[in-house]
Amino acid sequence: MVEILSDNKSHGGRQLVCSHASTATGASMTFSIFLPPQAEGGAKLPVVWYLSGLTCTHANVTKKGEYRAACAELGLIFVAPDTSPRGDGVPDAGEWDFGQGAGFYVDAIEPPWAANYQMWTYIVEELPALVGAEFPADLKRQAITGHSMGGHGALTVALRHPGRFRSVSAFAPIVAPSQVPWGQKALAGYLGEDRAQWRKHDAVALIEDGARVPELLVEVGSADPFLETELRPELLEQACEAASIPLQLYCRPGYDHSYYFISTFMADHLRWHADRLA
Amino acid sequence: MVEILSDNKSHGGRQLVCSHASTATGASMTFSIFLPPQAEGGAKLPVVWYLSGLTCTHANVTKKGEYRAACAELGLIFVAPDTSPRGDGVPDAGEWDFGQGAGFYVDAIEPPWAANYQMWTYIVEELPALVGAEFPADLKRQAITGHSMGGHGALTVALRHPGRFRSVSAFAPIVAPSQVPWGQKALAGYLGEDRAQWRKHDAVALIEDGARVPELLVEVGSADPFLETELRPELLEQACEAASIPLQLYCRPGYDHSYYFISTFMADHLRWHADRLA
Repeated sequence: MVEILSDNKSHGGRQLVCSHASTATGASMTFSIFLPPQAEGGAKLPVVWYLSGLTCTHANVTKKGEYRAACAELGLIFVAPDTSPRGDGVPDAGEWDFGQGAGFYVDAIEPPWAANYQMWTYIVEELPALVGAEFPADLKRQAITGHSMGGHGALTVALRHPGRFRSVSAFAPIVAPSQVPWGQKALAGYLGEDRAQWRKHDAVALIEDGARVPELLVEVGSADPFLETELRPELLEQACEAASIPLQLYCRPGYDHSYYFISTFMADHLRWHADRLA
Repeated sequence: MVEILSDNKSHGGRQLVCSHASTATGASMTFSIFLPPQAEGGAKLPVVWYLSGLTCTHANVTKKGEYRAACAELGLIFVAPDTSPRGDGVPDAGEWDFGQGAGFYVDAIEPPWAANYQMWTYIVEELPALVGAEFPADLKRQAITGHSMGGHGALTVALRHPGRFRSVSAFAPIVAPSQVPWGQKALAGYLGEDRAQWRKHDAVALIEDGARVPELLVEVGSADPFLETELRPELLEQACEAASIPLQLYCRPGYDHSYYFISTFMADHLRWHADRLA
């Protein structure tokens, strides 16, 4: 059962914030969903999933993402899940890059995280089933995108579900978490030291191991302070080239890691997805 | 002297957040200013002032207003001041509708507010002079708008400065503060019980007393919970009709008082202003 926490008319559609008791995470999960005006007619509409980055909740992109005008124009449902389980019973590390707000879109194996940090199952199974049941979402027409840690999530979810998504894009994604500090901390903490487990949650490793998507659109900013240490888009570029995956990789001069960057290119990404969802 | 607190590239331009020591308020004041890409060329550009509502700072519209895409397209500078002085030395009432976050765009007379709550002088004199000196702003081409308490501010500032603004619009403005609870509390608290003072800060009263603007654009939402008690757009409609001021007043079905409403119509207002600033 979905509880509607807020419901605001915007750009002709409805911006909802919802919560539900999640089986996967054993916690109450919050997500936002924008229903464009076309949803009034009763037709099922394509869905864009947006996975957020470290420290974020559903609220960051909902407030600052500037996606509603384009979704209203293009007839897209836009869903923004949270980045981890939260709440009193959920373990936390007291750190901004691990624990609450930093679920990294994996199913944790290590204690004490395994009990609740099942974000992979939540994003891949539970939430799509819920959205498909409760909203006029056409699950035959799905696209996925995300930012930073959520870009990592979008890429890995799409690479491991061939045929589910018509299109996948990312803003400033972590493309090779096994090779960078944020990713190494999270994967070791949630999955332990068995690097075979890590490869299933590393876009570059997945491509090296044979996973494929038809094409990729990736946006980064040249002034992103995490570009060279955490994001390393050149590793994705090399992997895509070796695997013959067409990659549109844009490095935008002067843009940083913030929603000022994301919001600038959001409408472009939504148009690109809409072309493939038609 | 302006201190730049943050500087983010967005929509081809620069979103700055600045602070400065204000003479008018005796406090450090923060404001945001968006410089569209056209500012790179060195030409002076028209300015849109956006005055925010109760409880807001510069940050609300800066994050949620969705104005940058349109300003970048139209070549508009967009300035969002704070709604009151703030800081340790500034008196506060501990209330959301009076004191810090609720300056009501007046010069307070009553103690203890008079020392710092000089928002009228700040908005009308000090900040325009600063923006004109420090940024490529063409002060011959100014427009003003605002939301709720800030709509009140925009209307009253424009009505009392004939010829300064090429255009004035408002989102869900308080049009007759003398006649509604928010306004009565604020005007009595800052200005005392002399209602002659109140009339200078009441758009409907100013129009009744002979103040004029060439035309007005006002947007309200039919689901705004404050529409009938605090905003009362029908009073502006009557005053404009009696004064032969052309008023475009749109009541948008289903929209509320939030930035979900404002952001929906922001680009329309900016285009309307741009037509008059050309």
